[in-house]
Amino acid sequence: MEPKTTDTIIRATGRSLCEYGYADLTMQRIAEESSVTTAAIHYHFDTKEELLNAFLDDLVDRFERKLACDSDDPRDQLVVLLDAVFSSNADDEFPVALMELKAQAPYHDTYRERFHELDETLRTVLEDTVEAGIEAGYFEPVEPREVARLVSTAINGGHVRMVALGEEPGETRHVVEDYLEAQLGWSPEATA
Amino acid sequence: MEPKTTDTIIRATGRSLCEYGYADLTMQRIAEESSVTTAAIHYHFDTKEELLNAFLDDLVDRFERKLACDSDDPRDQLVVLLDAVFSSNADDEFPVALMELKAQAPYHDTYRERFHELDETLRTVLEDTVEAGIEAGYFEPVEPREVARLVSTAINGGHVRMVALGEEPGETRHVVEDYLEAQLGWSPEATA
Repeated sequence: MEPKTTDTIIRATGRSLCEYGYADLTMQRIAEESSVTTAAIHYHFDTKEELLNAFLDDLVDRFERKLACDSDDPRDQLVVLLDAVFSSNADDEFPVALMELKAQAPYHDTYRERFHELDETLRTVLEDTVEAGIEAGYFEPVEPREVARLVSTAINGGHVRMVALGEEPGETRHVVEDYLEAQLGWSPEATA
Repeated sequence: MEPKTTDTIIRATGRSLCEYGYADLTMQRIAEESSVTTAAIHYHFDTKEELLNAFLDDLVDRFERKLACDSDDPRDQLVVLLDAVFSSNADDEFPVALMELKAQAPYHDTYRERFHELDETLRTVLEDTVEAGIEAGYFEPVEPREVARLVSTAINGGHVRMVALGEEPGETRHVVEDYLEAQLGWSPEATA
């Protein structure tokens, strides 16, 4: 596979999903959006499900790259994570498109696997960062696993609040930051 | 309007939404599911949007009734609320149907209004209950508004985790209960 063509198709899949929604997403629309022929798309991806799997794989990769942090300081790493997670706006179509795919997960195991991967990445980074901060003496000695679990659940909640209520993600970010401050004895705002 | 016919139609709308999903939900399918003619459905509801508004109104009503509690004790009231919120199973189709409607909220202000109403109800009951528990000396003197905000966000997160990850709601319930115990100095499990 030429990486450039598949990249073009994957990007067009994301844009088409945002524009038309899951139910009206067709190979034809992705072809129009990507200026790649439907024959060429079918050469790389057999079905709409395969296309969306590739789109979600790309999403997981991009999320992992966003979490990469030059600093070794767990406080900086936590700020990078919060920036990565809360970077959308309530007007963006992307969170809506992603919510539609989440609603499809019960019918598509391959989507569900990728959402598990995304969740695992988020929770592991949170847990490791909190643990490193405790070891370095920056954070209070909490239970990293429990903090990671509640914060990731709140992040999931922020996503659905953005889509269903049109609420800005900054609202949930505040809630999470207040919680982290109370738990860790450290405020993300103090570092940012 | 005869309440019985509209009730029958609203119930059938919910079942059809679960069975066919939002995109494939039609008046014809609701007619088949309810054994009410499409003409009769159109007599009561002009559009699919109006039907779903009525379905969501009914959902808000039922949720409010579920929160009604015979006891004046805020500890009992909090247990009733947790029971009401976490009563689904990961296999249920209803949470999936509701998530589909949430993903439609950006395109339908009338759905969004109803999700705001649901959120307002949940947050107000949480806030009032925590406040009453503090006044009665059962709970530590926390900030009721902040606790209500984090708990309702986590509940929203539990919903999306159930749909996207197939996770049992009991997982989020544990996370919320641990948080409440740490904040309020009171464990819902101790009362149940």
